[in-house]
Amino acid sequence: MSRTIKLTIEYDGTDYCGWQLQSNQQSVQGRIEAALAQIFQTAVRVHGSGRTDAGVHARGQIASVVLPREFAPDDLKRALNALLPYDIAVTAAERVPENFNPRRDALSRVYEYRLLNRLARSPLEHRYAWHVPAPLDFAAMRSAAAIFVGEHDFTALRSLGSDERTTIRRVFVSDWRRQEEIFIYRVEATSFMRHMVRTMVTMMVDAGRGVLDNERIVAIVASRDRALAPAPAPAAGLYLIDVRYGNRS
Amino acid sequence: MSRTIKLTIEYDGTDYCGWQLQSNQQSVQGRIEAALAQIFQTAVRVHGSGRTDAGVHARGQIASVVLPREFAPDDLKRALNALLPYDIAVTAAERVPENFNPRRDALSRVYEYRLLNRLARSPLEHRYAWHVPAPLDFAAMRSAAAIFVGEHDFTALRSLGSDERTTIRRVFVSDWRRQEEIFIYRVEATSFMRHMVRTMVTMMVDAGRGVLDNERIVAIVASRDRALAPAPAPAAGLYLIDVRYGNRS
Repeated sequence: MSRTIKLTIEYDGTDYCGWQLQSNQQSVQGRIEAALAQIFQTAVRVHGSGRTDAGVHARGQIASVVLPREFAPDDLKRALNALLPYDIAVTAAERVPENFNPRRDALSRVYEYRLLNRLARSPLEHRYAWHVPAPLDFAAMRSAAAIFVGEHDFTALRSLGSDERTTIRRVFVSDWRRQEEIFIYRVEATSFMRHMVRTMVTMMVDAGRGVLDNERIVAIVASRDRALAPAPAPAAGLYLIDVRYGNRS
Repeated sequence: MSRTIKLTIEYDGTDYCGWQLQSNQQSVQGRIEAALAQIFQTAVRVHGSGRTDAGVHARGQIASVVLPREFAPDDLKRALNALLPYDIAVTAAERVPENFNPRRDALSRVYEYRLLNRLARSPLEHRYAWHVPAPLDFAAMRSAAAIFVGEHDFTALRSLGSDERTTIRRVFVSDWRRQEEIFIYRVEATSFMRHMVRTMVTMMVDAGRGVLDNERIVAIVASRDRALAPAPAPAAGLYLIDVRYGNRS
């Protein structure tokens, strides 16, 4: 029986340097490895589906772990949740084939970005949404979002910080929905590069504010010039929602 | 021109002892009075529509303040939001008649209570919802909620801690809605006593878990005996949503 377990992880990224281990900083991966070491009394490595930056949240980060000895997935979930701090939780644990690789096997990733569009800042949304006080044209934002659908070279929209074999990505879904003052952007693609979603969000907000038109957005993407795109939107609004695999896992 | 200003206040109650001033503790009222003292260089008293307990949140707490000198309401809002910590914000400020009294003039208060009904705890809902892992019968909870509508003596459901001339309250709205794993209870009444909403929530959750039936809920209310009702639900799920006044303010 395979000892490889697929973990679904939710976290509030506010107090972390991000998913990935970094020396002398609190990472989500580091906290989970520390909890596993407590359970198994030996070092256990966790492999994530990809990094998330400091302050970025997750509802469905996926990671794999090869257990040093047999342990029922449901018991592992309970033991981890008892040991992890309140801002990290394992929401599912299931046995998968030994060769499961959460990064390489992923067919797509789904992110959401939340923003609050009203004059006053919100104490209850402070950690969870970007506060945009300027009036926004919601239809213009949806129209800009549609530009990103399909296969594009996203060089102009990414920051350096991860090695990429290619800068081409296929975007399956890119759209905004709205719940009164809260605007939620949902995007699904094969994968994302560093700051790519947050830079797309700034461009769409600029479209909503009327300072960037669709023609210009198309031109910026086509330029492959990072200097032409705006700065990424704040991390606090971004959520890794889901990582999708084939039927096997 | 009246110098009485009606403030609408949002706060994340997690790190406060509640709305009301208490010696040696951080209260929302205390923070607002400190900000007003900074602006006006003199002590300024704030009067709230009512208390909220430690950990309880507000989207629409109402307070009044009589300014020591003329100050435009919009400027006051901006100045306060610049001085207040991230977990307190003024979302509206408007001039009202001098005799406006946010507690006495209120016709009704609206509260909401959020709970998360799933097995795993949620890092993103940790401060904002009660985690109930047991399966809940949503229809049974709505049916129990309907019991509270109308005029009742709520002695059995309140904790001591505030002076009441009467323990009779008229409930206008009492119902649950649902967004997947999140259950939201909305209740509107003339006013509420301490722990009243949270005790109602525990009773309805007990109904949802199948351990308390409607007949028993009716009997507990009728008993006027605090010892028969269960403990109040956790503060983190409770929100003061709105305080309603007549047309004058």
